Amino acid sequence: MARVSQEHLDARRRQILDGAALCFARNGFHATSMQDVLKEVGLSAGAVYRYFRGKDELIEAIVAEVLDDIRSVFEAAGAQSPPPPPHELIGEVFGNVLELKPGFTDGAKSYYPRLMIQVWTETLRNDGLSSLIQEGYVGIRAAWVRVVEGYQKAGMMPSDVPADHVARTMIALAQGFAAQYALFDDVDVEMLRNGLRVLVGMDLPS
Amino acid sequence: MARVSQEHLDARRRQILDGAALCFARNGFHATSMQDVLKEVGLSAGAVYRYFRGKDELIEAIVAEVLDDIRSVFEAAGAQSPPPPPHELIGEVFGNVLELKPGFTDGAKSYYPRLMIQVWTETLRNDGLSSLIQEGYVGIRAAWVRVVEGYQKAGMMPSDVPADHVARTMIALAQGFAAQYALFDDVDVEMLRNGLRVLVGMDLPS
Repeated sequence: MARVSQEHLDARRRQILDGAALCFARNGFHATSMQDVLKEVGLSAGAVYRYFRGKDELIEAIVAEVLDDIRSVFEAAGAQSPPPPPHELIGEVFGNVLELKPGFTDGAKSYYPRLMIQVWTETLRNDGLSSLIQEGYVGIRAAWVRVVEGYQKAGMMPSDVPADHVARTMIALAQGFAAQYALFDDVDVEMLRNGLRVLVGMDLPS
Repeated sequence: MARVSQEHLDARRRQILDGAALCFARNGFHATSMQDVLKEVGLSAGAVYRYFRGKDELIEAIVAEVLDDIRSVFEAAGAQSPPPPPHELIGEVFGNVLELKPGFTDGAKSYYPRLMIQVWTETLRNDGLSSLIQEGYVGIRAAWVRVVEGYQKAGMMPSDVPADHVARTMIALAQGFAAQYALFDDVDVEMLRNGLRVLVGMDLPS
């Protein structure tokens, strides 16, 4: 057998993962067969099985990659000092999620949020994947707790509410908006940015 | 064949839907077989097929029911006048979602959010269900736009941002928190209420 470079192996692996992600985003993990993946990537079964022993292993690799991507986006946004206001921070996270896989689109619309909510569902019934998502979430929350502590130190927010509660609430916004983006047409990041800006600036009766 | 009352038919249909919802919440729509459902409800295939021609019909009925439940919760919360502050409104919606099906729990934890995120995934690849969720969302948004207009009329919020953007953002919060509740342990509605209260009361540098 001819020797192939590590670079070639990596590129081939990447090609398989990208094609499979496209199939899964479109039709879900369960309705996608290995045949669908082979057809999408244009490779033989032998070529694909050299990298992944089957659909379960492919699903695991994709889920792990999605969780890692998302964690990176949240952590990068949360690492800014001083932290930007919430609507800018959340707008940035959501915008960056949409750009995670260039070309991974249906027309102008990123497939990424579709893939995300399918990952959520898949982790519900798979203990190994569930551990992965639990760990990732702990990291994301820690990064965002530091953001909230930054707001508290700057006197923008009272310190008598656990920073973790505010962090979870901000993360929920990005997650919920991802669900809307995946499920509905006509959703864009400007709406989230506008909506949160106005909410944060609200005058509540005291 | 003996005549049976409408009441009996309805109760039996209810029993099947509840048992199936439990199976779907635990294992997902795809990993659940009709055999699993029969075992859960303790009925024969003949008894169940009298109500539902198969798994697809059962899935459709459950998805329609979940979307209807969720729409009712959001609309009821949105119909209050004057509208309560956002953290109370969202806290109420999320709390009511958790109580939608009494007894539909794993220990103290409601299965409902698990079912919700699986419904999202299911609607991604089924055009009929997708129409149902699109219509439901239009209704929810309309109810919440009225809430936001209430805030605007009370001078609590500027009128130069579309009320629809604020409504979508508030709905995203409830959806994202449902995802967290389904995916992670140790999530409760007080966190969301606290987090949003503090966010809405933030002092932004002008």
